[in-house]
This record gives sequence, C-alpha cells and structure tokens, in this order.
Amino acid sequence: MIIVTRAGITSDELDHIRERVEALGLRTHISRGELRTIIGCIGDEERLRGVPLLAIPGVEEVLPVLKPYKLAAREFSVAPTRVRVGAATFGGDAFVVIAGPCSVEGEEMTLQTACAVRDRGATVLRAGAYKPRTSPYSYRGMGEAGLEVLSRVRAQCGLPIVTEVLDPRQVEQVAEHADMLQIGTRNMQNFPLLTEVGRVHRPVLLKRGMSSTITDLLLAAEYIMSQGNMQVVLCERGIRTFETATRNTFDVAAIPVLKKETHLPVIADPSHAAGRREFVPALAYAAAAAGADGIMIEVHPRPEEALSDGEQSLTPDEFGDMMATLDGFVRAAGRRLEAAEEVEAV
Amino acid sequence: MIIVTRAGITSDELDHIRERVEALGLRTHISRGELRTIIGCIGDEERLRGVPLLAIPGVEEVLPVLKPYKLAAREFSVAPTRVRVGAATFGGDAFVVIAGPCSVEGEEMTLQTACAVRDRGATVLRAGAYKPRTSPYSYRGMGEAGLEVLSRVRAQCGLPIVTEVLDPRQVEQVAEHADMLQIGTRNMQNFPLLTEVGRVHRPVLLKRGMSSTITDLLLAAEYIMSQGNMQVVLCERGIRTFETATRNTFDVAAIPVLKKETHLPVIADPSHAAGRREFVPALAYAAAAAGADGIMIEVHPRPEEALSDGEQSLTPDEFGDMMATLDGFVRAAGRRLEAAEEVEAV
Amino acid sequence: MIIVTRAGITSDELDHIRERVEALGLRTHISRGELRTIIGCIGDEERLRGVPLLAIPGVEEVLPVLKPYKLAAREFSVAPTRVRVGAATFGGDAFVVIAGPCSVEGEEMTLQTACAVRDRGATVLRAGAYKPRTSPYSYRGMGEAGLEVLSRVRAQCGLPIVTEVLDPRQVEQVAEHADMLQIGTRNMQNFPLLTEVGRVHRPVLLKRGMSSTITDLLLAAEYIMSQGNMQVVLCERGIRTFETATRNTFDVAAIPVLKKETHLPVIADPSHAAGRREFVPALAYAAAAAGADGIMIEVHPRPEEALSDGEQSLTPDEFGDMMATLDGFVRAAGRRLEAAEEVEAV
Amino acid sequence: MIIVTRAGITSDELDHIRERVEALGLRTHISRGELRTIIGCIGDEERLRGVPLLAIPGVEEVLPVLKPYKLAAREFSVAPTRVRVGAATFGGDAFVVIAGPCSVEGEEMTLQTACAVRDRGATVLRAGAYKPRTSPYSYRGMGEAGLEVLSRVRAQCGLPIVTEVLDPRQVEQVAEHADMLQIGTRNMQNFPLLTEVGRVHRPVLLKRGMSSTITDLLLAAEYIMSQGNMQVVLCERGIRTFETATRNTFDVAAIPVLKKETHLPVIADPSHAAGRREFVPALAYAAAAAGADGIMIEVHPRPEEALSDGEQSLTPDEFGDMMATLDGFVRAAGRRLEAAEEVEAV
Repeated sequence: MIIVTRAGITSDELDHIRERVEALGLRTHISRGELRTIIGCIGDEERLRGVPLLAIPGVEEVLPVLKPYKLAAREFSVAPTRVRVGAATFGGDAFVVIAGPCSVEGEEMTLQTACAVRDRGATVLRAGAYKPRTSPYSYRGMGEAGLEVLSRVRAQCGLPIVTEVLDPRQVEQVAEHADMLQIGTRNMQNFPLLTEVGRVHRPVLLKRGMSSTITDLLLAAEYIMSQGNMQVVLCERGIRTFETATRNTFDVAAIPVLKKETHLPVIADPSHAAGRREFVPALAYAAAAAGADGIMIEVHPRPEEALSDGEQSLTPDEFGDMMATLDGFVRAAGRRLEAAEEVEAV
Repeated sequence: MIIVTRAGITSDELDHIRERVEALGLRTHISRGELRTIIGCIGDEERLRGVPLLAIPGVEEVLPVLKPYKLAAREFSVAPTRVRVGAATFGGDAFVVIAGPCSVEGEEMTLQTACAVRDRGATVLRAGAYKPRTSPYSYRGMGEAGLEVLSRVRAQCGLPIVTEVLDPRQVEQVAEHADMLQIGTRNMQNFPLLTEVGRVHRPVLLKRGMSSTITDLLLAAEYIMSQGNMQVVLCERGIRTFETATRNTFDVAAIPVLKKETHLPVIADPSHAAGRREFVPALAYAAAAAGADGIMIEVHPRPEEALSDGEQSLTPDEFGDMMATLDGFVRAAGRRLEAAEEVEAV
Repeated sequence: MIIVTRAGITSDELDHIRERVEALGLRTHISRGELRTIIGCIGDEERLRGVPLLAIPGVEEVLPVLKPYKLAAREFSVAPTRVRVGAATFGGDAFVVIAGPCSVEGEEMTLQTACAVRDRGATVLRAGAYKPRTSPYSYRGMGEAGLEVLSRVRAQCGLPIVTEVLDPRQVEQVAEHADMLQIGTRNMQNFPLLTEVGRVHRPVLLKRGMSSTITDLLLAAEYIMSQGNMQVVLCERGIRTFETATRNTFDVAAIPVLKKETHLPVIADPSHAAGRREFVPALAYAAAAAGADGIMIEVHPRPEEALSDGEQSLTPDEFGDMMATLDGFVRAAGRRLEAAEEVEAV
Repeated sequence: MIIVTRAGITSDELDHIRERVEALGLRTHISRGELRTIIGCIGDEERLRGVPLLAIPGVEEVLPVLKPYKLAAREFSVAPTRVRVGAATFGGDAFVVIAGPCSVEGEEMTLQTACAVRDRGATVLRAGAYKPRTSPYSYRGMGEAGLEVLSRVRAQCGLPIVTEVLDPRQVEQVAEHADMLQIGTRNMQNFPLLTEVGRVHRPVLLKRGMSSTITDLLLAAEYIMSQGNMQVVLCERGIRTFETATRNTFDVAAIPVLKKETHLPVIADPSHAAGRREFVPALAYAAAAAGADGIMIEVHPRPEEALSDGEQSLTPDEFGDMMATLDGFVRAAGRRLEAAEEVEAV
C-alpha cells in the first residue's frame, strides 16, 4: 500500500499516519517530494485492507499494490483450473458450448430443444426454472416444476444441466436437480447467495454483473471459493454503457484480461450481450477468437413465441449454422469443439 | 406499442405481424412509408409486454408507448405518498435527515453517534448490522447482535432505525428490530428479497442500483408495491460511470425526474455518491436544492477507525456544520428541517 | 511515480527498469515484497511523463503521484482566479448568470431575448453564430452575419457576449466580436483550437467533454494556459452515461472536485445536462448549492420555434421564475446574484 | 415520427400539435389511448428533423422512425463500398492490415518499421506526423517534416500511407503526402475538419469517438460524404466505460452492427482499445472473427523507447507472431490476408 499525502502536510500529521500504519504491524518508508510526501507501507498489505486510510488527516490518495483476491488469482494455481460438468470440461482443450432455451416453458419444448442443440454440438443444456425479471409482471419461470422437467430431460437427452439459482433458500433444491448452478448478472454481488453456492458440491457458472469491473467479478468468485467450492467458471455477458445498439456492450477484452488474472475458466454469453439474434453469431466467433473456454447460447424452437428473451434466441437451424462456422474459429484458436458423440457415450 | 418494420418487408411478413398482434386482442393501424412501415398497436399495451415482437421476421424496432410500471407511476396517485418512520415523515413539508454510522460497531459508539446526530438535527438513525462487502475478507457487520444493539439504542435516544437487509431469510428478523428496511444498491434487483420486503408492514428505503436506470428503479419499487407494501422511499446514491474522482457519479437530475415520474418520496445519499467526506456537504446541499425529500449521511465519531466507509463519514462536528448550512438550502427549497424537539417529544 | 513489477520478476529485469529510470535523472528506491516489488522513483516526475514504463519487461503497473497539470492546479495560485467579462466577474462573490438563445436566429429575436434575460438578472449574453451539429443536415448557424448581430445587440442591450468558436481559422474573427470565447463539449480536445484561443486576449469558457474526466478537463485548460491565456472558466455540462432520462448525466460533484483541484472559476450548464426544460431549474439550483460560480441557461422567446435546442430552452418568463427561486439558493451558498442595475450602469 | 402526448392533454393542445406538424407538410394520424394519445406523422420525416417537437406543450416523447443518416445507410448502396489505398482494398475479399509506429520519430526508425511490417503482411503503413495529446507537455509529433519522412519511406518500402490530420488548415498539406487521411477519435465531431476532408480526393479513415454511439459515427461519416467524398472507412477503437483494466472498452459488437447499418468498410484498432500490448493480439483475432474488413496495429522496433503509445505497441516479431495466428481467423471468416507480394508488385 502506498499513501500519498496532500501538499503542505504538517510533521504532526505525518507522524500520525506513520503511527497508524505501524500500529497495524507494517513498516513505513517515507519519501519527501517537493509537493507530496509518499509513505510506502511494507509488510502484510492485507492488514491495511479495509482500514480507512483516506480518512486520516493529510492523506490525499491511497494506492494499493496487491490485488484484493487471492484464491482466484493466477498466482494461486500454476495450472489452469478445469471444471467438469457431465462429459464437458471447462478450461481444457475443448471449447464448450452450452445451449438451450432461456426458460423451461414445458417438458416437450425443453426436450425438443435439448436434443436439437445436442445434435448440433452443444454439450451442456441451459434453461431457467427460476427467472429474474426486471418487471414484476413478466414471466418468472416454472419454479420447482421446471427443475423436475430438467431432471427428466437430462435423463432422456444425456446433456448435463446448468440452471440459475436466485435465492439462498433454493440452493439445495436447485443443486439436487442441476449439474451446475448459475449465478446471474443481477446476483453477482448477492453475497448470501454466493456464500450458499460456495457450500455445495456443484460447479458454479458466475456471470459478470452488468456494471461490475473485472476485479469485482474476481472478488465475487473469491466469495464462493473462500467457502470451499473451487469449481467456478466465469462468464462475460456484456456491461452497461451509453451504447444502445446492442442490449449490453460485450467486453470481449475481459476474456484475455481474465485469462491473465485468474486460473479459472472463462466463457462468454453472446446472447445477452447482443440482445438481438442477428448479432449473436459474430459475438460467439469473437469470443472463441479472443481465447474463451466456451460460450452459452440461447436457442428456442420458435423464438417469436418464447416467454422470455425471444429477441435474442436462435432457432435450432440458426444455431447449427453458427456451430458450423464456429468450428473454424475454434480450430484457429488451437482448440476443438467437443464432439456430440463423446457426450452421448456417457 | 409501435412496431417499425425493416425496409423491403413483404406482404406476408406484414400480415404475419398483424395477425400476431391481433391474436393478442389489440387492433392494428398500418402506415406505409417509403422506407419503413409502421404498425400502431391499439388497445391494452400490457398484453404485448414480454412478447418478443423483435423476434418476428421483418420487425426492425419496437417502441413502447406506456411506462412499464403502474403502482409506482405518478398517475396512480394524485397526492404524493407520505411515508412515516417514527416521528419523521418522508414526502411531506419537512426535509428528513437520516444519519449514523455505516456499521453498528458496538453499543457505546452507536449510542454516542445516535445522540450526536439527533442533537444536530437528524430524525432517523442509520446503522448496518448486516453489511454487503465487495470482498469476502472485509468486515461484514455484527449481524443479529447488531440488531439488538439498535433496539436498545432506539429505546435510549428516541430515533427510529433504518438498517439494511441482505437476505430474504432475514427479513422477518430485521423487521422486528428496525423501523424501516433498507435495500442496498447491490440488491435493487434481488427479486426474492424485494418480494419478501413487499410482504412485511415496514417502510422500505430502496437504493438505486449503481447501474440501474430510473426506470429499473421504479420497476424495483413496483416489485415491492405489487406485494402490497406501498411504503417505499427511493434513494439516489450515485451511478457507475467512467469518472473516478468520486466513488460514484451522483445523478442529481434523477431527483426531479423521479419527482415527475412517481408519487413516492425521493431522498439522496451523498456519502456513497461522493466516497470522500470533503465532498459530502456539497452533494447534500445539491440534493436539497434539486427537490429531494431528505438525505442520508454517514457519521462516525472517529472516521479513521471506522470498520467500514470511514473515508466518507463525517465527524459529528462536521455533520453539525453541514446541518447549519443545509438549513438555508432547505428553506430556499420551500421546506423545513424537522426540529429535533418534535422527535424527542414522541 | 511508483512502478509495481509482476510476480516473479528476474534480477536482470529489475536492473533494467532501475537503469531506465536512473538514466532519466531520478533516483530509485526498491521495496521487495513477497509477490511484487515496488520501485519508487524519486526526483522530477515530469521527466517520466510520457515514457512508456509499462512497455518495459516486468512492469505490471505504473502509479503516478503528481497531477499532470500545473498551471491549472490549485497549488499554482493561492487566490482563486477571477475572470472579468464586461461587468460580470467569474470567481468572485457574485454568482454569474449567462443566458440567451442557443443560436442567433436573427437580430430582432436576439435583441428581444437579450433584453429579456438582462431584465431578469442575467449579466452575460450567450448565443451561437457557429453551431456544431451532430447531423450535417441540421441548422448550423448564421456564421459571420451572426457575429455582427451580436455586436449590435451588445451595443443596444449592454450585456457582454459569449459565443462559441469551432474552427482555429475563426478565432480571430470571433474574438473581434465576442467578449468571451466558448469552447464546446465536442471541441474540448481539439488541440489546434485550444492553442489558438490560448493566444488571444479574450476570456475562454471551456466546456467539459461529454466523456472527459475531470483530469482531462484540467489538461484542456492547461493547453490554453500554457499559451499565455490564463482567463479560463470551466463549465460542467453533463457526461454521457447509460441513463437516458436526461440528455446527459449532470455530474454535480464535479463542481466541488474542481473547486478543490483548481483556482479557476467553475460554472454549470443545466440546459445541456437536462435536455428538457422542465428539469433545468432543479439543476440550476443544485449547481448553485454545490458551490458553482455561475450558470449558463438557454432562453428562447418561443422554444417550439427555435432552430436548435428548443427542447431545453426556457421562455423568458420561465427564466424569470427560475431566477426568483435561484436567489435563495445563491444566498444560502454565501453568494449574491449580480444586480441588473450594475450592468446597465456600465 | 411518432409523437406521444402526456396524460390529460387538452383538445386545444392536441390541435396545436397537429397544426404545427401539418404546417410542415405532413399528415397526422391520431390514436387516442386511455392514458396517452399518439400522433403518427405521415410524410417526409426529414422536414421534422430539428424541429423541437418536445418543446410544444403537451408533448411527452418523440420517437423517430427513420435513421438520421442517408448516404452512409445500407439502403443507399446495394453493393458494399470498396475503398482502395495503394494496392490494398478495404471492403473486398481481403482482410487489410495497417501497421506502423504511433509517431514518425525519425526517418530511419520509420523506414525500418515500415519494411518490418510489410515483410510480415501489412499492406498499409500508419504513422503520425501530427499527434493529438491529452497533455500539452507530451510529444506532439514532427509535423511537416514528418510528412516528408513519410513520403520518402513510401518511395522506398512501397506501402501506402495513412496518417492523422488534426486541423482543417493542414488538410491540403497532409493530403499531398498521404494516401489516406485519418480522423482521430477526439476529432470525430470536429465538424470543420470533417467538412475539409470531405472536399479532398483522398480516402478517409474515420475513428469512432470514445463516447460516440454508432449513430454518431455514421453521422460523422455523413458529414464527409455530404461534401462529395464517399471513400470513408470506419474504425472501432474502443469506447469509454467504467472498466479500467483496458485503456478503452473494445465494442466488438459495433462491427456486425455497422456491417448491417452501412455499406462502408469497417476496421478495428485493437491497439488503442487494449492500451497494453499483451491484449492486442486477442482483440485483433476477435475483430477478424466478428467480420471486420481489416485492423490497424501499432508496431515499434523498441516499444519502451517510443515517444508515444509504447505501452500498446508490438515489436516487429510480436507482430509477425500475431499475423501467423491471425491468418487462421481470417480464413475462418471466409477472407484472406493480402500477400505482401501483391503489394510489392505495384
């Protein structure tokens, strides 16, 4: 931690800052400049975390040196973490494609979509039983009945399931039916929920908050990991900016930044970033090219009848076309699409 | 709802759009332009809400005409809603000042701060027992013990209490001890939590999410109100932008916009907006001038020792100075600061 | 300047960094931490400005200690700078109100508006002869003929004139007719234009770029000042964010931040921030309360017929009502509105 | 254009709105709803552009139906526009790579870099003679002498030159030496400059402003095109958001959005988006995958000694490595990298 003082600081103020830092067990090194004095704090920076140094008279700025996350940091694990969900592995050589409808709208449509995306190369099925909706008057999902549909669909089509959990009270129930728990963008800083999913033995798909920095995302992963669950996959899904041509602004650079900062797998959600299905394939290709470990795509048999997110859902055929082109980008990135056969063999 | 088609739409596509809209019980009015065709949908717009019109082939843009919130809308209530918390009334003639420490750190400091802010003009006490923190390693509050401290402090100093609730499982417990439940910025779209606070008989202080639009904020209020709890006070607390000189960008214009759009009271939180105590008073004055119904201010007896948010906490004396100047702005706005005496008389 | 290295830096890399810094005439102080090594650079930080330290192998982060502006910095001038324009003084005890139409649309309407705003308390007239417009098909102003109108209007109504200059080739011409040159938001980083206005003897009204940080704004002022023209008034006018309820997001906190960082006067433009006339007065009051030295308001005799910015223009009567209420906020801020009489006496 | 009225509008107000619209030569169609009345304006929407309909009493919202740009719109040209610069063609089958140093720092380094990038597959050379810099104390380029260096370098290495023009007074001079004129991000709305480059016979590389929407970018292109110069290439280079891990947020989705909206070629600048050289290749690959017509990359023989943008410059070897990998992504996108040979043959 480096403390920068304001111009014209008094000796008493300087002594007081030094005493406060040293009382916390660190040593200080003072460089007096013409305009500002700099106090280097040497020792365990963690002890200063949360101490309101800016509130000490004479302090102008506080510059942290260490990253605030540990378990999620690249330094914590030399090897990339691999997260297995059914036959799919995030963070390995294969590029994982998660696909499926936004919501479980019924058993038939879910099974039909699941088989359609499996046959076109998806290896994990997505579908929401509990839906977070901005308006209280929008469709909020089938709830527990939807989870049961998902269990039956898995049995029939063979794909493992990722589904969203919204409420700490539902974590156990969702974990019974799902292979992977999704934390949505609006819950990335729902700390009781992060704590609960940190306590179950299920991989977690953690989506970036729409106004979260990359550091915030890694701290949210740290919440889960600090409870003992290290099976976290991060997901870039677009951030909120002034641009309205797309639903969110897809921060494709977050992919290489995260690959540098953490050992956790990183995937992307082009559907929510784009918000309109015509732009989804281009963002999927960009994600693969930028080094993502996978993508998650919304697919619906009849998008214009979807109960949620129809605007951004591909039809199965559009999804198939996208997969055919995606293959070239995945290969150029030195990866491979997992063959549907491997999954069916499970 | 107005539907704009893409250039070169076919008659079949146009017929299909019209049929879809009419099947939902609305009439259509078609204006063919040179480049685009416009379809006005006449009737109950609510029936179209959530229908993915953009997913219909040929649709280029969908322009909603009605606001998506109803109970929170200005039209719903001719008179401004007044929300009573102890002797304080939000939305009436008085300008309400909530003050207190970020966290309950212990009984003595909480009581001392409570009395100090009451003596300087605050009429509601704020203090957190459960704290949402970006890092899992930061101080997360005293929890239930903190709530009990708050109950005792209220008994001694006479101020009603507003405190944050983070978890739907805690709503009942917090509601037993608190006079007003606070929903923090990170939980503005925690829908299970909004639903739970909508079911208790306690006023709610709903803070704007840091990347929420004003419409999102009103929809979050609508969640609470649609459960039957109409006692909602909205709070502008700064949004996330590219500017880093302050912790958040205080969107002071949200105050007059909200006063136009809704009948609910609107207050501001200059402490979280500024993030540094030197800028807090200016933002408090700006909030009063822009027409807010009150403010919420963090005060700590020794900010540099605070366990959270010390950087943005005023000392009791700084708070007193601010109140003295605030009085002029409140009067210029045609309001009055509630006298401490009125409260003590309760 | 403080250099933070990546984990696992080699001694050779460390030596190379140290040599590079010392070759520029600074001393280094090295603190080896467990994970990162920190290199404090002691001496004239200016010599490091612009050196791409991040490009040196092993460097992870570079933390500047000094502000990049000098002439604009608070430390440069103990006393606040006062800028005189006609009988008005920015940065003194009086709160200066600039008002007038967006564009000079003709002589009669300009004179009529000028007299109307003067009679209601404005002491500087604004009106554009050259208009920057997002679309090439919008009205772009009367040009030189508009400047001549402004000269005649000044002679008749007595108010000094501020008008925008867009092009370095027009600076001399505009300076002949105007008392103060305005640099608009889209030109805040038009460096040839800043250089030219830095060379004339005319006060400059410098508006913040819509995506400029406060530091960027002060560097733009520095451009002008480094050419010898120290008569710069800064203007907050809203920044671009995700919120669309107002045309821009009025960053009212920029006012106290700027008052701390610089000795230059700071005013606000509520009209462009709001974008809709119903919200203009609230933002004007907020600006006064936050400590601004003045405001600039668009006024048009018939807003619905204005050739530009009619949506955000007040009528003369609305302006008069606003001024009456503003007076209370200005007094609460310890300032006074300049009386129209003083100006007329000139 | 669709006009939405506020609730409770009077018949007189409604008549007045209708008269205003009809006076401009359009017909109106009125749909009275329960809460709002909607007025469809039928006819030439252009006549309403710029009319402040929002300023008419009773108008709540104005929804434009047509895009504000014409020459730049997809509908204007069935075939994609191709822009030739030397042997390179933007908008055709080939993926064009522009590379070179940020600034012309001298003849030897410029020639050396030019040959190095040509030998590794670049077909256009970039290098700045006039540099826009945020601080007046940063290096601002060699100016005219730099242009002469560029002319000599072109003669020797054979690559055509793109270089930035900052000032309308320099357009003619720069056009004499350069094959393509670059408008930088800070000048995207410098309207006198756009007008001047619209009058010369040189292709223009127009970079997106850092807070410009895609619509703003197309309107800036429209400025140039409305002067007669249709040879415009658009460039996505990152926008300003709250995320600070990269210098700007690379809006990769702007590429497919622009490809849909306009017939003009679209390239990307990964160097300025990333701001750190380690992230440049990933963004270059993402741009190719998303459908860009080319990229522009900063390359410097010794980045740590660069006078500008060293942090984001690749070495020639890093550039060569990037090109080798890029080839796979370009092929997967159904394009090809132009061979250096073709260029040398010219």
